[in-house]
Order: sequence, then structure tokens, then C-alpha cells
Amino acid sequence: MARLVEVTDVILRDAHQSLMATRMALEDMLPACEALDAAGYWSLECWGGATYDSCIRFLNEDPWERLRTFKKLLPNTKTQMLLRGQNLLGYRHYEDTVVDRFVEKAAENGMDVFRVFDALNDTRNLKRAMDAVKRTGKHAQGTICYTISPVHTVEKFVDMAQRLVEMGVDSICLKDMAALLKPQPAYDIVKGIKEKCGEDILVHVHVHSTTGVTLVSLMKAIEAGADIVDTSVSSMSLGPGHNPTESLVEMLEGTGFETKIDLEKVYLARDHFAKIKGRYAEFLTDFQGAETEIFKSQIPGGMLSNMESQLKQQGMGDRMPEVLAEVPKVREDAGFPPLVTPSSQIVGSQAVFNVMMGRYKVMTGEFSDLMLGYYGKTDAEKNPEVVAQAKESAKKEEITVRPADTLKPEWDDLKEKAFALEGNNGSDEDVLTYAMFPQVAPKFFAERHKGPLNLGKDPSAPRLAVDPSHPGFLKQPIDYEITVNGNKKKVTVAPV
Amino acid sequence: MARLVEVTDVILRDAHQSLMATRMALEDMLPACEALDAAGYWSLECWGGATYDSCIRFLNEDPWERLRTFKKLLPNTKTQMLLRGQNLLGYRHYEDTVVDRFVEKAAENGMDVFRVFDALNDTRNLKRAMDAVKRTGKHAQGTICYTISPVHTVEKFVDMAQRLVEMGVDSICLKDMAALLKPQPAYDIVKGIKEKCGEDILVHVHVHSTTGVTLVSLMKAIEAGADIVDTSVSSMSLGPGHNPTESLVEMLEGTGFETKIDLEKVYLARDHFAKIKGRYAEFLTDFQGAETEIFKSQIPGGMLSNMESQLKQQGMGDRMPEVLAEVPKVREDAGFPPLVTPSSQIVGSQAVFNVMMGRYKVMTGEFSDLMLGYYGKTDAEKNPEVVAQAKESAKKEEITVRPADTLKPEWDDLKEKAFALEGNNGSDEDVLTYAMFPQVAPKFFAERHKGPLNLGKDPSAPRLAVDPSHPGFLKQPIDYEITVNGNKKKVTVAPV
Repeated sequence: MARLVEVTDVILRDAHQSLMATRMALEDMLPACEALDAAGYWSLECWGGATYDSCIRFLNEDPWERLRTFKKLLPNTKTQMLLRGQNLLGYRHYEDTVVDRFVEKAAENGMDVFRVFDALNDTRNLKRAMDAVKRTGKHAQGTICYTISPVHTVEKFVDMAQRLVEMGVDSICLKDMAALLKPQPAYDIVKGIKEKCGEDILVHVHVHSTTGVTLVSLMKAIEAGADIVDTSVSSMSLGPGHNPTESLVEMLEGTGFETKIDLEKVYLARDHFAKIKGRYAEFLTDFQGAETEIFKSQIPGGMLSNMESQLKQQGMGDRMPEVLAEVPKVREDAGFPPLVTPSSQIVGSQAVFNVMMGRYKVMTGEFSDLMLGYYGKTDAEKNPEVVAQAKESAKKEEITVRPADTLKPEWDDLKEKAFALEGNNGSDEDVLTYAMFPQVAPKFFAERHKGPLNLGKDPSAPRLAVDPSHPGFLKQPIDYEITVNGNKKKVTVAPV
Repeated sequence: MARLVEVTDVILRDAHQSLMATRMALEDMLPACEALDAAGYWSLECWGGATYDSCIRFLNEDPWERLRTFKKLLPNTKTQMLLRGQNLLGYRHYEDTVVDRFVEKAAENGMDVFRVFDALNDTRNLKRAMDAVKRTGKHAQGTICYTISPVHTVEKFVDMAQRLVEMGVDSICLKDMAALLKPQPAYDIVKGIKEKCGEDILVHVHVHSTTGVTLVSLMKAIEAGADIVDTSVSSMSLGPGHNPTESLVEMLEGTGFETKIDLEKVYLARDHFAKIKGRYAEFLTDFQGAETEIFKSQIPGGMLSNMESQLKQQGMGDRMPEVLAEVPKVREDAGFPPLVTPSSQIVGSQAVFNVMMGRYKVMTGEFSDLMLGYYGKTDAEKNPEVVAQAKESAKKEEITVRPADTLKPEWDDLKEKAFALEGNNGSDEDVLTYAMFPQVAPKFFAERHKGPLNLGKDPSAPRLAVDPSHPGFLKQPIDYEITVNGNKKKVTVAPV
């Protein structure tokens, strides 16, 4: 009899985060929920990562309402989220009681599986969140961020898995956010975990498809004993996204492994997302092929597109190759952190500064903090010269304790500030929103009553505006903004 | 020590045949030849398939001149072609001396490796061409067309390999033109061939990537002992094309297998094709994802796009699902032929007719011929009722002999007709062009002196929303109502 391999679909979170800048509106996901819920997935990743940020920053949507909606519409499938350990979904470390509160509230609002990671693989940064998840009775998944460096051996990853098991996790995720996990290490690491931690420990493998090799890596991980793998509905897959769910299912035929996925249900979801995808053309990644040069730069897919657009905004689009060459150097100086949010942004920004201004002539505050231990410890030694420069630049000392141990209780203060904002609803959830996004929360609270925005546009609209078969060409009015000698004017052109 | 796996790149033939309707001009391939020739490939597929047809039909380019040019620019790498056995590169069976002449001329003009297949896997249709290749001293590769049906077992494919070996082939190609070859059968067939025919027989695996599973199949084929695999430079890969060469190379790291491909050289070719690809936007396939529903219809990628455009031309675009459902039925009636040129077109067209007019109410001449044995024998029994209908429709009897045995010597006749055409150059090559494309050759011979066309267009040229050749394009003044800062104005736009 074939061994069952379980599947998590990331269509509702990481797929649109990776392929369309996390812009998909909840209303464009709802019509697929019935099919997704019936398809036989182990879980549906649908929350966390950048979705919380995107909800309040771009979509005027309450992320907690999104979570409750998913919980309601997915009664037969576990909901799953990605949580950045002590960073929660923000970009700094939070004091422990804030972490506890976030996990409690997420569980209360409907979250079943918490995939918790730390960008530096510093397990001290995972522990508080994992303990909180355990207390709620939900599924606590400890995460190993896969990366490649001279210090990241198979043994190192297996040792980390062992530490996670000792922490009491319910499963282990091997997370490959940059599609760097080749077939052989995928096999070796999963095999190593099963041998060291026992056959019974659930191993869940997450890969992106950027380099084109990782469906093979999933095959090898499954051969080594992986229990659950992450994929995405095919119409929202590949490129910087994930391997197609349908391909994974078909691939296993006759191999001695099988899923319980009902492909006809997946096809319903596929057709839905294929239909709405065009509405988000302006946010869709250009990149749809396979890119193996990232085995050198190791910049994850999502980060790559962000960096490109940042460089373009600064008129530096042509200096991308220099920045790509600088990233590995900065990463080595910083003790070879895996490149994942927020370390990818921190290393990436510093690489941009190095190319613009000269190496470490200007140091970002975040990069200094990384060099001085304020994000946790890295797996390799840092460059002592750059550490010295960071001390001077930031006027701070190096720390070796768990970063959150340096923080004072902050819940009451956060609550007071959040509740002072117009439009707050007096909930702990709003305090958490303010805690994680203090710059964005005020505007969101004030405008929340207007309801969610859908940034998707009817793809036929701009083309309908001009129709050569119409004698006057124009089918509907077109708005232009025209700048004449520096003065902007709104111009509407309409057919007579 | 790792076992060497050799690589054939199909960038110069099948990649653009599958992704841009075989339209790439020779001049857009030449700048990449130096890098390709230095990259360490076993061979470069660069001729045959649909390229000959496309050269004379669309590109006003002499295919023999193309072959001589590749031979000159690829001094260190074997050239390779795809030959349809007794069909050569045309769409009917040719008498044996025409087959001999074609192979001699191709060898003389620079072809090194002849991959010879028959759409029905009827080895009688391969023998004459293979014998001719052997006489020239070039590499004779016998091909198994992979397909899925109740009769196509692993044993059946292995038996065919054995028959090819007995025929004296230099290597065996397992050809998966529709991306139907899943990992397990890939492993089993290659393993079976090595066990039955000996470890020393070279096995070359060709897959498309349409279904998203076939890079895994290549991995499994390599594990089973495959010696050579087909891939394509990444900027012209995936979708209905092939797996990216770079991904294959990277995938093998640490697995005990390795290629001798120099990726830096491949990147040069990649950058070149990425640059010129946009010029062919109008010919590029829309489909860039993974499509697993073809495990049901089994229509190869190239055929799928052709059928879609044919249906659209007949205003039947919306009936594609019915045609897709009809194809397997027609295929079963015809004895489960593999679907590859020309059987894919024959079965596809009949399926279209069945949907339009009722099942077998109208039978194409080609489909009757297929049912009556004029293309060779199929691996399964045909539906006797449909055979009877074919006899009546075509007023012909069934045959069981090798189809070419029914043909009379035709070289002298073809030569006379070819040499009567304006612009023929008196060469055997021109006779072959006429023999294979009698409808197209006259115009090509007459216009050949004007030189090759490049159908690529400068993508930076402004995209005209309106075709200037359109009769309504500003031949008369157009009145617009324009609103500027709220003030309405009438504006007339007139042609200058």
C-alpha cells in the first residue's frame, strides 16, 4: 500500500504574497473556499506573513475579520499561518506578553496551525511563541529556515530540528523561501531529522519554485520520509511562487506515495484564480521562468522583486547586478544569516547602501542591530571589523542574551496608545495591530469603516476604451493627467 | 566519482517550435551559437521537426542553408535533427529512394545525429531511414514515442527498444512529446531497456514540461541509467516547451550524477534569447504554467495551441472542451496511436469534425488512411465499425503491409516537377523541398532570391491600439468632447 503524503496549499497566503505583492482581496478568495475545503488538504495556509501588513496598509481590511471569515468557510480543513517568532508579524522584537497575547488572539479567532520561524534560526526567538501555541492546544510547528553557506551543513539543520523537538513542537517545517533546496540536501536533511528525532516526528517541507529544481526536491524529501509538503493551485504557481499542487499529485502516481487530494476540486479553485488573476496585472511578478543564478545571491523571490522595484524607484535599476554581487559579501560579514524577512530586507538594504555610498560608509540602524546581536545570534562568526563599525555607527554595545530579554513590559503602553486613536474598536486585536504597525494603524483605524478595497481592476477596461471598429474609436471616457509647464490638469476625453 | 549525464539542448529547434510556433529567424539564433557550442552539450538539436516547413512557408529561408550555417558555427558540438521516419519532414509516406536521398543530403550538409521516429511506433516505418543513416556513418537514434493507454505497458516499450537495438541503432530515444511521462514509468522504462538491451545501449530521454512533472521524470530516468537528457536554455523553456537546462544542471549537485555543462556559457545564450524573445510576442504561447488535465486528453503542447487557434478561426473557440473530450474516444477507435505529428493532427482534426458534424459523419481522408493501415500498424486493435466506415468513406481496402511497399518509385517524377518550377536551383535539395511541400515549394523557389524574412518585431516600437492599415484609421476628422478642469470643449482631430 502506498504511503500517504499530506498537502498544504498556500494559495490563500504565500502564493499571492509571492506572485502579486500580497494584494489579493478577500472577496476574490472567498468563491474558491468551498472547493479548497473539500479538496482534502492537511491545511490551508491563509494568514500571517505579509498579509496582515497588506490588509491594513493597502486593502483597508481588518486582518482579524479575514481570519474569522476563513475559519467559517473552511470548516473541514485546518487553517495555517506563518508567524515570525518574537517579531510576530511586525519588523521588531516584541516583549513576551505581547507575543502571548497575539498567539491567544489568533487561536481564539480561528487559527489551527502556527508555523513559527526566526530569521536567524535562533531558537531562543521561537520559544515564547511556541509555548504560547502549546497552551492554546493548537498545532505548534517549529521551523528551520534553509539556507546555503559554508557553515550550514546537514548536521547543523538536523541539530536544530532536535532542539525544536526538545522544545515540544508538534511538527517541524523545513522552509526554503528562496528555492535553494536542491534534491540531495532535501533528502539528507529529512532523512537526518527522521533518524535523529524519530520516524514519528512530522516533517513538513516548504519550497518556492524560483530555481525550477524544487519539485524534484519535494520528491526526494518524500522519499526520505517527509509527511507534508507545501504546494499551490497551478494557476497561481511557479516563478517566485510554489510548485503546482496538481503536478505534485500526478507526479506521485505509481511511486509508492499518494496524496488524498481530489484534483477535480483543485481544478475548480484553479479556474477561479485563473479568472481573477488578470485583475491584478499591475501587481503580478514579471518573472515566470526558472532562475538559477540565485544559487549565488540567495535572495528569496519575494525580496528580489521588492529590491528591483526599490532600485527602480531610486533610478538605480541598472545597478541591480552590483547589488546582487554585494549581497553575499554583506551576508558573510553578518555571520551568514538565512535570507528571509526581516534579515533579507536588512541585508538587502545594506547591500544597496554599500553600492550607492561605498561599503559600510552608511549603516542602516537595522543592520547595526543585526551586527550587534539585537536580532539574536547567527550560526557563524561575524566580521569583527564590521561589528566595530556597527558599535560606532549605532552608539550601542553588543548583546549576547535573548533580544526580548532586554525589553520592558509594553502591553499597557501599547494599549493606551492604540485606544487613543480614532476609530479603534477597543479590542486586544486592535492593540496588536497598533503594536505591529504603529505608522499604519492610525489611518487604518480611522478609515476602517469604509470597508475593504479591491485593488483588482477589470482587465478589459483599458482595452475597451479604444475600439478601432467604432467610427470615433472611443467607447467610453478616458481620464488623463496632463502636465503643462509643470501644472497638472485633469483631462477627460469622451466620445461624442 | 559521479556518473556523467550528457545534455542535448533543443533551443535551436524544439524550444521555439513549442513556444513560438517555429518562427525564430536564423539571424536571431546565430549570436548564441558560439556560447552554445562552448557549453559542453552532447548535441544541439537544430533542424527537422517543423523547422523545414516553417523556413519555406513563413521565413523565405532555405532550410539547407540553415543546416550548413549551423554546421559551420557549431564546430565542437554534434548537430541533431528530428526525422519522421518514412514521412521525412512531410506529412505522407515517401518511397524508399526519396528517404535514402533525404538522409544522404542531410548528412552531406552537416547533420550528425538523426533522431528517427514513427508516429505509430511501427518500426517498419523507421527501418529504411535508419539503414540510410548507418550507411552515411552518422549517429542513428531510434525513437520510442511515449504515450499512455491501456495497451502501452512498460514491457511494450522495452520490447520496442529491443527491436530497435536489433535494427542496429546507435542509441534509443524515449520521446515524451506531451509531458505525459511521470517519474515512475520514466524510471521503469529506462531500467527495463538497460536490463533487456544491455547497460551499454545509450538511452536519451526527451520530455516537454507542460504538466510540470517531467523534471522529476528526468531525475528518475537518470537514476535508472539514462545517459543523455534533453533540456532547453531557461529563457526559452517551460510551459509547452522543455525543462530549463540550468535547473537540470543544478538539480544534480551532490546526487552522484553530474553534467559537463558550463553554466556561464548557458547564461550567455539565455540572455541572448531573453532579449530577442519579445520580438516574437505575437507568436509566443500564452501558456506558461503547468497543465495536468492533459493527462486525460494527452494532446501534446504544440498541437494544443494549434488546435485552439484553428478552432478560434472557425469561430468555435468555445467548443474546445468538447473537442478535448472527443480526442480520447477517437484515439481509442484508431487503436491508441501515440499523439505526435502527424497522428496528433489526424486524430485532432477528426475530433473537431466529430464535434462539428456528429461522430464520423464526415471522415477526413487522413483519418480513413489511418484506420485502414496506410500509416502503419497501431499497438491496439481498431474499432471494426469505424474501420468499415473508413472503407466506405475512402473507397479503399485495408492494408497490412509496410505502407511504403505500396508506393512506386517517385524520385524521377518529383525531380521533373521540381525542376519545372521557376527559381529552382537544380539541386537534389530542391527536389526534396518540392517532394515534402509541393504546395509551398513553388512560391518559395520563386521568391527565395529576396532572402530570409525576420518576423520578429521591435518590441520598443509603440504599440498601436489601432492598425494604421485599417480603413477607418483617421481617414476623416473625428470630433471629441474634452473636459478640462470641468470646462467642456469640442475638439476635432483630423488626419494631416
